[in-house]
Amino acid sequence: MADDALFEFLHMEMVAHIYKEQASQAEMEQERTTSISILEGMGFRVGQGLIERITKDTSGFKDDLDIMKFICKDFWISMFRKQIDNLRTNHQGTYVLQDNKFALLTQFSNGKQYMEDAPKYLAFSCGLVRGALCNLGLDSVVTAEVSTMPSCKFQVVIQKT
Amino acid sequence: MADDALFEFLHMEMVAHIYKEQASQAEMEQERTTSISILEGMGFRVGQGLIERITKDTSGFKDDLDIMKFICKDFWISMFRKQIDNLRTNHQGTYVLQDNKFALLTQFSNGKQYMEDAPKYLAFSCGLVRGALCNLGLDSVVTAEVSTMPSCKFQVVIQKT
Repeated sequence: MADDALFEFLHMEMVAHIYKEQASQAEMEQERTTSISILEGMGFRVGQGLIERITKDTSGFKDDLDIMKFICKDFWISMFRKQIDNLRTNHQGTYVLQDNKFALLTQFSNGKQYMEDAPKYLAFSCGLVRGALCNLGLDSVVTAEVSTMPSCKFQVVIQKT
Repeated sequence: MADDALFEFLHMEMVAHIYKEQASQAEMEQERTTSISILEGMGFRVGQGLIERITKDTSGFKDDLDIMKFICKDFWISMFRKQIDNLRTNHQGTYVLQDNKFALLTQFSNGKQYMEDAPKYLAFSCGLVRGALCNLGLDSVVTAEVSTMPSCKFQVVIQKT
């Protein structure tokens, strides 16, 4: 249990630090974008490292859907000890991954008041997914949205090249 | 396994980010001190959070040595999945905790060339210990040194008030 907490607390600290540092440097709107992209970038590199470890004994994937299923199950379990609760796709490169109890949001009380803070706690995780997919050969755009805490939806749009 | 990696990679990213950010702001020597104290401060707060969770079902401690043993065993296992290999004390408030295979140093090759980088990967952990001890009622100064990677010694000096 405390294992997870070590990561979760460090994540909290990191978010807080990056926001504080940016706030002292620039004005509000600019700051928000920069902090989110710093966190997303960190997630991207961590995602790349993690997926390399997890897939080292895995044989190839059949198709994009097969990769997404792997992300929802093995990758998610290795990070957050649970799998994605629901995966939907339009079969045209868009996937929606729903986690009904997302680890990095469980500390928030369920109400409207923290809703606008949610994006900063999701940027790192969006990066994790994008980094993992990138190493598996898929360019993507990953965004996240929260309607009710601590549930969360990640939208992945595969970029066809 | 990947669980640990999630924390370890995030830790790497954080160290890298904080050093980069400081480098763009100030000159070298100044920078080094600031980065280390930022990382130590993050560790301090994470340590406080973790110890609170781990000790919630623990009854009181007999004395300082009893607390240090708890740090070496339960606290260390919960963070790094192994206990401290050796604990020594002068019975006057100084403790030396030796970890023969410290998790955050295992990625370094064993040689002289990375030795000077070691402090920046130990600052967060020094903070972890100081934060934990602080919540258990002990003010301390915690420093770390490496003689051979990935082995590491933490020196804890309890501050009598």
